[in-house]
Amino acid sequence: MIEAGVFGATGYTGVELIRLLARHEQVRLSLATSRSDADRNLAEVFPGAPEVDLIDPEQAPLEKLDVVFLCLPHGQSAKVAAAALQAGARVIDLSADFRLTDPDAYQRWYGLPHPAPELLDEAVYGLTEAAREQLVGTRLVANPGCYPTSVLLALYPMLLESVVSGQVIVDAKSGVSGAGRTPKLATNFVEIAEDLRPYSIGRAHRHLPEMEATLAGWSDWQPKLIFSPHLVPIARGLLSTLYVPLPSGWAESQIHDLFLETYADEPFIKVLPEGEVASMRQVNHSNRCAIGLTVADSTLIITSAIDNLQKGAAGQALQNMNVVFGLEETAGLL
Amino acid sequence: MIEAGVFGATGYTGVELIRLLARHEQVRLSLATSRSDADRNLAEVFPGAPEVDLIDPEQAPLEKLDVVFLCLPHGQSAKVAAAALQAGARVIDLSADFRLTDPDAYQRWYGLPHPAPELLDEAVYGLTEAAREQLVGTRLVANPGCYPTSVLLALYPMLLESVVSGQVIVDAKSGVSGAGRTPKLATNFVEIAEDLRPYSIGRAHRHLPEMEATLAGWSDWQPKLIFSPHLVPIARGLLSTLYVPLPSGWAESQIHDLFLETYADEPFIKVLPEGEVASMRQVNHSNRCAIGLTVADSTLIITSAIDNLQKGAAGQALQNMNVVFGLEETAGLL
Amino acid sequence: MIEAGVFGATGYTGVELIRLLARHEQVRLSLATSRSDADRNLAEVFPGAPEVDLIDPEQAPLEKLDVVFLCLPHGQSAKVAAAALQAGARVIDLSADFRLTDPDAYQRWYGLPHPAPELLDEAVYGLTEAAREQLVGTRLVANPGCYPTSVLLALYPMLLESVVSGQVIVDAKSGVSGAGRTPKLATNFVEIAEDLRPYSIGRAHRHLPEMEATLAGWSDWQPKLIFSPHLVPIARGLLSTLYVPLPSGWAESQIHDLFLETYADEPFIKVLPEGEVASMRQVNHSNRCAIGLTVADSTLIITSAIDNLQKGAAGQALQNMNVVFGLEETAGLL
Amino acid sequence: MIEAGVFGATGYTGVELIRLLARHEQVRLSLATSRSDADRNLAEVFPGAPEVDLIDPEQAPLEKLDVVFLCLPHGQSAKVAAAALQAGARVIDLSADFRLTDPDAYQRWYGLPHPAPELLDEAVYGLTEAAREQLVGTRLVANPGCYPTSVLLALYPMLLESVVSGQVIVDAKSGVSGAGRTPKLATNFVEIAEDLRPYSIGRAHRHLPEMEATLAGWSDWQPKLIFSPHLVPIARGLLSTLYVPLPSGWAESQIHDLFLETYADEPFIKVLPEGEVASMRQVNHSNRCAIGLTVADSTLIITSAIDNLQKGAAGQALQNMNVVFGLEETAGLL
Repeated sequence: MIEAGVFGATGYTGVELIRLLARHEQVRLSLATSRSDADRNLAEVFPGAPEVDLIDPEQAPLEKLDVVFLCLPHGQSAKVAAAALQAGARVIDLSADFRLTDPDAYQRWYGLPHPAPELLDEAVYGLTEAAREQLVGTRLVANPGCYPTSVLLALYPMLLESVVSGQVIVDAKSGVSGAGRTPKLATNFVEIAEDLRPYSIGRAHRHLPEMEATLAGWSDWQPKLIFSPHLVPIARGLLSTLYVPLPSGWAESQIHDLFLETYADEPFIKVLPEGEVASMRQVNHSNRCAIGLTVADSTLIITSAIDNLQKGAAGQALQNMNVVFGLEETAGLL
Repeated sequence: MIEAGVFGATGYTGVELIRLLARHEQVRLSLATSRSDADRNLAEVFPGAPEVDLIDPEQAPLEKLDVVFLCLPHGQSAKVAAAALQAGARVIDLSADFRLTDPDAYQRWYGLPHPAPELLDEAVYGLTEAAREQLVGTRLVANPGCYPTSVLLALYPMLLESVVSGQVIVDAKSGVSGAGRTPKLATNFVEIAEDLRPYSIGRAHRHLPEMEATLAGWSDWQPKLIFSPHLVPIARGLLSTLYVPLPSGWAESQIHDLFLETYADEPFIKVLPEGEVASMRQVNHSNRCAIGLTVADSTLIITSAIDNLQKGAAGQALQNMNVVFGLEETAGLL
Repeated sequence: MIEAGVFGATGYTGVELIRLLARHEQVRLSLATSRSDADRNLAEVFPGAPEVDLIDPEQAPLEKLDVVFLCLPHGQSAKVAAAALQAGARVIDLSADFRLTDPDAYQRWYGLPHPAPELLDEAVYGLTEAAREQLVGTRLVANPGCYPTSVLLALYPMLLESVVSGQVIVDAKSGVSGAGRTPKLATNFVEIAEDLRPYSIGRAHRHLPEMEATLAGWSDWQPKLIFSPHLVPIARGLLSTLYVPLPSGWAESQIHDLFLETYADEPFIKVLPEGEVASMRQVNHSNRCAIGLTVADSTLIITSAIDNLQKGAAGQALQNMNVVFGLEETAGLL
Repeated sequence: MIEAGVFGATGYTGVELIRLLARHEQVRLSLATSRSDADRNLAEVFPGAPEVDLIDPEQAPLEKLDVVFLCLPHGQSAKVAAAALQAGARVIDLSADFRLTDPDAYQRWYGLPHPAPELLDEAVYGLTEAAREQLVGTRLVANPGCYPTSVLLALYPMLLESVVSGQVIVDAKSGVSGAGRTPKLATNFVEIAEDLRPYSIGRAHRHLPEMEATLAGWSDWQPKLIFSPHLVPIARGLLSTLYVPLPSGWAESQIHDLFLETYADEPFIKVLPEGEVASMRQVNHSNRCAIGLTVADSTLIITSAIDNLQKGAAGQALQNMNVVFGLEETAGLL
């Protein structure tokens, strides 16, 4: 039995993860932490969550754990990661702390010096489908952001073939749970319920460098994405609509075949039939990614849908844990 | 031209009121205040709101105003009311500060000593349809709460006939704008979007004493309501479902006639045909109250719907202003 | 391995059931039917549903099945039930066809003669917590309606003690999936999204006779409920707010103890701490029922929340199957 | 007083128009038609709508009308338009029947021969801001589609300067009222509430030829848009996010100045401050269009928001009527 700890248990990602762990037969949730709600029960502070005692993170017996999941804000996560590794646990970090390998880029985008730069080299960027081999046995996984997961999976097959060039535009739409559980005016019910709102569009969102660095590692293409996220009045779900120059000489059916082949054995990637589009409902409450391919003139439109809390966060974290520990990759997941 | 000031302009009620005032041809919005957003423009801090300069309430030239609308938290409102009256303006207070005539009850329910008890006697409780005569020319109007408006209008005709007795149960459902614009976890989008939640049920909600005091003033009935509000995943709208003992000897059609007669000349009260029920959509974005009457055995079920921001707040405030100043009662309202 | 068939697989209840069956390790989904979508795949006609071939119900090899779940409209269900029993399968009927034991009542409420009155006697009304013993080994289960499940579980402990008397009022609120998947104006997105709407209030809803008959079987109380359902702009979830005369001589804590004791060993019933209220979010996507108890003067307010598609339909159906076949009652359920 | 008739009064556009007309002091609603609900009252068939008698369209006394608004399906509209013009009324057609000037294109996109090709030449495409002069006194206005309105207003200033070239991508998001009021599975509440869904993406949507023809008329640019609409779980609102190659040599501030100057005197166009983005909430329940401009590298991102039922349909129709009849252009509008 793998002994697991979840740090930052009371947010949307933490609770989703704890729910998934409860169904996983080879993992036991040994501890769950909350700084603000220590000594309370998770079900009290999050209606409908499993009944789990919350402890102060400072009190957590790291040495008893086989794996630590960090659902903490960036900046805080790296410190706990260092301590957990020190204590012998493996770490799956759902924050941004180990997603960028360049500490300067981290400081530029996140506004603080990296808290544990010495660990950056060993962290594996855990887009599972693209990183399976490096993941096996690794000590430290940087779990990808929700937007990057949907975008990278949508481009991966084409980059393996080095057929992406030119300008790629990503118009992304996210449910509000992606914005976290800390109350703020921008996510107050009434503000959201009557709105659909772009934010950090163009080249301003923190998920941009993470996407571009990963893409650059897959081929010679030096991507300069245009990336426009939108906040949508729905609790969960994430849809990215990508506009990619159609590789010259490629027909729609060839692109489709490439995706089908690349993802043929992937349990969580669903390449839709030609001409169909991905939508949130196809994947919500599952760890799947649905990908639709549509060609219009010389533009390839890729629609890529995930559940931001599952494949975009807690689900992929568990998938990564399965790979790291050599378990069945789908264990505990739908 | 009536010169009007709105204090507390950046909340849901304040903005609704400013929108309504913009359509009213006999009123001019002279000033709008916001402590936290002074010197900014309302349209900046509230997307879609009219472009209105916000000033610090301390800087407001009260002496230039004919009428002051107070969309402030209870406790703060009474102090500004006193100053505004002193400066010669009439005051329509949308907070709870002048709704209870008994300062001890105020302290019990609102947890602080009444800030201006000397004004309590002259305040008129502005449920317009029941208070029209007292309203004409008054200096100080206590604008009713949203729940009380829906409940009192549902019971008023029967109390005029003194035919209510026994236990009345009110099961009420409100849109989230009724909870105000200050960010809190309980009204965060995700918390609300996946929930329907009772709160302060039984005899615990602050609108209870206001309802019971008003009801007690209309007949000999000494009401002890059971009042159960529920928060609903919708931005605006309020529906109260009342369970009233059917007066003995009264048939459904007689009750229906009584309501039709009582409200025959009311521009904003819509008594529905026999057997129809009120619902939020019938009244949202209007100052109307829709009332449905259904008899089941010896229980009369009254459904009463209003828009919580209009007839439940800003709309009724404007309706009251029209009466106070002797204008057409429907001016500026739908 | 239990071989299961689902009739009427493409509705909200059918898909929920198929999702649950997919996680149940002792059951295999052998067939799923759809008259309108025969020969298609479920995932095609219901985005996000499992990939299951749909067959015409007339073609279904009943003789291969151990259990048949009927997610069909009333009237159709009873005929398939008769054929399935004939073929040797056990039947769990999620329609209303076997909920009323009196064929005349059936005809009165459902407007057609009962299609298989000879089976009424042997049908067990499957409110699992109250019917566990009769369920073991039975051939035909009438799965309760969603509203009755929430209401009956809220009253059961008190009826065991025979302490309910007088008028009980139920104000219920349901998510829209309870209205089924057939398109109609009343459930069109825009109609619902801006509304909260009572319907069939008083003594008009078809779930009333089912509730009253079951209650009458539990004690000497002859119930005449007032039952007012409301349609709420949320996809799933059901909350009933019950107003019950407080039994004379009973304190709040005694009532609370009674509920705690009655449900002490129940895996799916969660009696909330004193003073807390049930809400949809506490139970959605689970088979649980959350019950809150609040006393106000001489009224006991019971809030009872279930997921209408799980404990209110497919979840309870699976729970019943587990009991009928002698499996772990919680198998496949959360 | 202008006598107005509304054909197709019971849809979302028809009701929105009737609400707007009720506030317009120089227009009187003389008649409203509904084929399916003739002889009923609009408030009965559409909760919250004004009380207006509905008549059968065949019975409509066209000769009494000064203006006829057609909120009918394409194909039906043109026939009534012809009759109304014959009877001496002016016609504002909110369907697609007169938006394309080429009857072959009409047949290709709408699947039927144009019902009144002889009228195509005189129809004025009523994007008010771009067509004001032709509108004055015209007999027949083709009111633009909702998507085209948001897209064309976003591109108009740049086309006046002939600085658009290359590929323009439009990623558009619409509230569900844009899909009409006829019940269908795709717009059933549950299907929408848990989804965000692209549809007719690329070069497949019927609004595409209308946009491209209008754009081609404004400059030498021969547009080949990529246009991807998405259905969003919100009742009303429309946001288009446009990706336009930044004209070479133009700085962000110059683009911004161009928009400010072009729309300087427009009452309904709000060019946002540099760097701000448009969102639905800024314009819903108004006739305004909010336009945001963001430059990222060599891409200009334009966000353009309208209320699909107002500026995207009924509001612009009324604005056009005001221009046609020489009234104040903002009369009756917000």
